Amino acid sequence: MSVTAPRGFVASGVSAGIRRSQPDLAVLRSTEPAVGAALFTQNRVLAAPLIVSKAHLAEVEPQAVVINSGVANAATGVRGELDAVATAAEAGRLLGLDAEQVLVLSTGVIGVLLPLEKVTAGLAQAVPALSADGGPAAAVAIMTTDTKPKQAVVARDGFVVGGMAKGAGMIHPALATMLAVLTTDYPLAPGEADAFLRPAVDASFNRISVDGECSTNDAVVLLANGASGCARNDASFTAAVREVCAGLAAQIVADGEGATVLLEIEVAGAATEEDATAIARRIATSPLVKTAAFGRDANWGRVLAAAGSAPSNGGFAKLDPGSVSLRFNGTQVFTAGAPTALEPSLEGAVCRIELDLGLGVGSASYLASDLTYDYVRINAEYRT
Amino acid sequence: MSVTAPRGFVASGVSAGIRRSQPDLAVLRSTEPAVGAALFTQNRVLAAPLIVSKAHLAEVEPQAVVINSGVANAATGVRGELDAVATAAEAGRLLGLDAEQVLVLSTGVIGVLLPLEKVTAGLAQAVPALSADGGPAAAVAIMTTDTKPKQAVVARDGFVVGGMAKGAGMIHPALATMLAVLTTDYPLAPGEADAFLRPAVDASFNRISVDGECSTNDAVVLLANGASGCARNDASFTAAVREVCAGLAAQIVADGEGATVLLEIEVAGAATEEDATAIARRIATSPLVKTAAFGRDANWGRVLAAAGSAPSNGGFAKLDPGSVSLRFNGTQVFTAGAPTALEPSLEGAVCRIELDLGLGVGSASYLASDLTYDYVRINAEYRT
Repeated sequence: MSVTAPRGFVASGVSAGIRRSQPDLAVLRSTEPAVGAALFTQNRVLAAPLIVSKAHLAEVEPQAVVINSGVANAATGVRGELDAVATAAEAGRLLGLDAEQVLVLSTGVIGVLLPLEKVTAGLAQAVPALSADGGPAAAVAIMTTDTKPKQAVVARDGFVVGGMAKGAGMIHPALATMLAVLTTDYPLAPGEADAFLRPAVDASFNRISVDGECSTNDAVVLLANGASGCARNDASFTAAVREVCAGLAAQIVADGEGATVLLEIEVAGAATEEDATAIARRIATSPLVKTAAFGRDANWGRVLAAAGSAPSNGGFAKLDPGSVSLRFNGTQVFTAGAPTALEPSLEGAVCRIELDLGLGVGSASYLASDLTYDYVRINAEYRT
Repeated sequence: MSVTAPRGFVASGVSAGIRRSQPDLAVLRSTEPAVGAALFTQNRVLAAPLIVSKAHLAEVEPQAVVINSGVANAATGVRGELDAVATAAEAGRLLGLDAEQVLVLSTGVIGVLLPLEKVTAGLAQAVPALSADGGPAAAVAIMTTDTKPKQAVVARDGFVVGGMAKGAGMIHPALATMLAVLTTDYPLAPGEADAFLRPAVDASFNRISVDGECSTNDAVVLLANGASGCARNDASFTAAVREVCAGLAAQIVADGEGATVLLEIEVAGAATEEDATAIARRIATSPLVKTAAFGRDANWGRVLAAAGSAPSNGGFAKLDPGSVSLRFNGTQVFTAGAPTALEPSLEGAVCRIELDLGLGVGSASYLASDLTYDYVRINAEYRT
């Protein structure tokens, strides 16, 4: 039930005609006064809805989220911002909220204006349809090239955390991520949500890559309404938020555009955490590592080549081949600067890459998908 | 005639059996005392032949180059270095040179040991075959996934600069580049070659990208033997070296693995040169820009999304959508923060992307290929 699993949340998803025939407009609201936080993409080309949502968040606690797919409303200038403001205003009017209490998110083609009349008409459908069963419909309405909706729920200690996400391409979040909305009936005071959301996002959505592309529209939102009436247990809540984020992030990579293999990348022994992250990210975004994985070719030399050229601190991350060891899908293929001549097998849907640099205690993990014919097909055909 | 076009150079290319049935071993030497320089990849996993060639260059002026394809001799540890030393020693013996006067370069699969017996037997074939007509054969013998040899010659003011290069994948040079060898009969004193080679490489090979992959084996070598007997004209020579480098670099991108479109990327108006280069490089390596180009989809929003997330100076390069203008294949699609609603056409084999940031005077250009089914096929099947 995703975002409507916690008490006091309703949602809906409808077809507003922005996309040809798929559902494309989702509305989510808390029926109790909620507090919230959001993290946004660091891309310098910030989509209009994110500019507007940032401004709204700075004024009041968010109570509702409107998400459209099909058009990203990014690189659309002042007109785009006005369209995003108008969307929030119309949703607020229908929901009995101030416009500023509504966050707006968009996902789809960049550089195209939002068809505001369709969005407005869609809201008139979606708001009356809001229900405590509407989570799955909302999760479907935010999809673009996703092949399946992404939802996660964790219930424990008297509270529930729910979440939905979309994302299949342009996935390489920087500090924020693709679209994800988390809800909870756990009690938080105003201003508290960010401290729970940020570390969970950093350990999940910020550690995945489909194609190394950082979107203009990435956003993660958390709404908390306290409707559970449970006692505070922040350690438990922290773990639950992290679990939901990790679950959604893994679903995104597994549904990466054209993906056939999940690459689980573990880097250890780096000089610093920063170097470890840079190396894990470089492997996760290497077209040669990813095409080899698609071809089920255990071409582990490409992993070392990628690791050796990981941008970090204005240069490349520290790496001395003489102290490196590499396990490729469970087989030790390289140790102390030399190949072992063992040939790993590469079958199935998961490929585990464990690289130990033997330099320090920096470590990082990353999830990535492979690079396939279907990734090319989907993105060569996406708009046309 | 490539590397044998200048006076006083001989070359050959033979089949040593390292690759199944293609020529795979090239030898080039100057028949007059030469001086030289080389630039090597910055990848931390430096291939064994480059470790050895660096050491040789530190001792004496280079007189000959041996290049094998099929096996990169990278990530091969001490054994790999011994194999590279043995190759130089055997070539030196056959050529009547010290081992240190021979540079060795390799290209091919990473993590596989060099078949030294085949290399040795190949040298016994290649050295007697050296001739002033051997340039084209050498250019063929250094190919891997290249579909055609890359050669360039500039003759002017009494001297000639020749060059050959290989490279089709793993092309995203950092400070050095894939394999390229330049020869000239222009007179240079010992130690002078580097100052001519470095800026030419920086403006050519360091401004191309096929797949964002920085190889373990990238190297560019320049040998100058003064055999022309011409007077010095350093301005003319500088221009000639640059022209040969640019010609070879363009050939590499045009023959990029699976390439169907050449992307010519021009960034202007950036806050700094560094930002301009970062943005041009980010566009050149964007899978979404490259798949759209393959699909002949003028999806220019992806260019802005890429430009907005260009790593520079520990953050993203400066970009304010409000001052950006973008021409896509000659059509102004975005100006002053908003789309123009003009639809560019995208046909033919070249796509020109001109981005003006309106912030400063930083500018940079880049050449890139598109991302296609064939890139995936070639790299999913390369080793197996």
